[in-house]
Amino acid sequence: METSVKVFAPASIGNVIVGFDVLGLAVQQPGDEVIVQLNDHKEVKIIKIEGDGGRLPKDTDKNTAGIAVKSLLRKLDSKQGFDIKLYKKLPLGSGLGSSAASAVAAVVGANALLGNPFSKKELLPCLMEAEAVASGSAHGDNIAPSLLGGLVMIQNNQPIQVRRLPFPKDLWVVLVKPNVEVLTKQARMLLKEHIPLNNVVNQFSNLAGFIASLYENDLELMRDSLNDFIAEPVRAMLIPGYQSIKMAAQQMKAVGCGISGSGPTMFAFTETQFSAQKLSERFQQEFNEINISSINYITQVSEEGAMLL
Amino acid sequence: METSVKVFAPASIGNVIVGFDVLGLAVQQPGDEVIVQLNDHKEVKIIKIEGDGGRLPKDTDKNTAGIAVKSLLRKLDSKQGFDIKLYKKLPLGSGLGSSAASAVAAVVGANALLGNPFSKKELLPCLMEAEAVASGSAHGDNIAPSLLGGLVMIQNNQPIQVRRLPFPKDLWVVLVKPNVEVLTKQARMLLKEHIPLNNVVNQFSNLAGFIASLYENDLELMRDSLNDFIAEPVRAMLIPGYQSIKMAAQQMKAVGCGISGSGPTMFAFTETQFSAQKLSERFQQEFNEINISSINYITQVSEEGAMLL
Repeated sequence: METSVKVFAPASIGNVIVGFDVLGLAVQQPGDEVIVQLNDHKEVKIIKIEGDGGRLPKDTDKNTAGIAVKSLLRKLDSKQGFDIKLYKKLPLGSGLGSSAASAVAAVVGANALLGNPFSKKELLPCLMEAEAVASGSAHGDNIAPSLLGGLVMIQNNQPIQVRRLPFPKDLWVVLVKPNVEVLTKQARMLLKEHIPLNNVVNQFSNLAGFIASLYENDLELMRDSLNDFIAEPVRAMLIPGYQSIKMAAQQMKAVGCGISGSGPTMFAFTETQFSAQKLSERFQQEFNEINISSINYITQVSEEGAMLL
Repeated sequence: METSVKVFAPASIGNVIVGFDVLGLAVQQPGDEVIVQLNDHKEVKIIKIEGDGGRLPKDTDKNTAGIAVKSLLRKLDSKQGFDIKLYKKLPLGSGLGSSAASAVAAVVGANALLGNPFSKKELLPCLMEAEAVASGSAHGDNIAPSLLGGLVMIQNNQPIQVRRLPFPKDLWVVLVKPNVEVLTKQARMLLKEHIPLNNVVNQFSNLAGFIASLYENDLELMRDSLNDFIAEPVRAMLIPGYQSIKMAAQQMKAVGCGISGSGPTMFAFTETQFSAQKLSERFQQEFNEINISSINYITQVSEEGAMLL
């Protein structure tokens, strides 16, 4: 029996423009790596965190990885102890589901070391507990895709119930994270509590169109549908350069471009790796021009989600 | 060349529970019949209306059939005159797209007599003009399915742009129109101008789930998804017996049940003709118990929409 596993859990794009709090997409890169080891002292400990600049708590009641693993142990009525090492590759406060990825990797690791008593989907409630602490309210649109891979639709948050949707495997994803920070809690506070009916109806058209485009593999319909009337109009103000990025994506015929989760990372889909590279360069330029550095990723959809390495 | 045509245009279920102002479904029965005849006096005249109890205007600037045909002639720059006879089989103010069906049948007839210069889809803008007069604002969720058949998604209202979605052909539709009247304009006024974000998110889940269920032919997912957080919570109060109907549908395992358009007609989907009949009887009973008579229809989806007879 193994006593230590290393797990990768990928970043995820929350909302995917048209599905506020309902859609999330896992990408292959970047992602967090977590090492989970059995220990003998019946306690869950986070013994190391790398790549967070010292900002994440090691307290297992405050760190999402600790919360998720302790929730798993409670549900199994197990007293097993674990040592957890987090290697944060995902930038914090980026809108890429950083806190979700750590929690996913840790709980998948702990579950594996216990002999996989739970299926991946059965781990979701443990992860919801962690997410509630991280973002102030429990949403599944990052944990579910990071765990399961692909494009995931949240059918219910309480209890968490999700469903995988098809997604064109050959699309490329460009991520650009400008060096400004947006806190999920802040981004959520900006949102209005009531949405004009007109905007709701427009969003219905876009969401229905987007789901249809997935099943029909119709990139024109996808392009027409990927516009947000709910969160982006207010969250755009948190991202300097937002308009230039949107315009660049449009000029370069990206298949949709928007804010990932609560931002500031923005993303776009492209049809080829070549256009992804071109678009990535252009995005970097746009931020350079307003003296903001950025980190870019060119990637594709993660089919598998979290996995043992 | 023919000088007279008879056209059938079917009733339609607006919203289809989860797609407020965005989805509409054509059914085979009931529907309006319209006879359109060429005349020599370069004028569009409504020379007969049957089945409306004398309530519809014959003024071609106020009757949707007249408005649509005159709009067609304007777009074609034609001075052709028509005599129009409307045989209203659809109850007025029922939420079944009665005004839309007359307009659809009339404009399809006029277009046919002119040698079909326009495709069906090209007739949509003429019909939007008519619908704007009938309901106070132009919505395509009745005219588009009545014209084109099937389940139609409105992508845009200005300019009108629609798309047909798949729908399980073997589902049955039960319609029950209680003998109470709801005016579309009134039903629309009841709606709140702003929707709580929570309800919007729940509706996103349901809409995405419904669209997915159509492509996957997954009736369980459809059943889970067919709930409305937008219009029904306020419009239910216009329909005495609403709760009993919903409960009856749930007990009898209908695949969703809701208000058709702005009501008062309610509808439900069932998997077999037998359960449609049982449910129809039960609906009638429920209204009987509160001393309201009702008209019921048991039908299926209209694949063809409007057609020459």
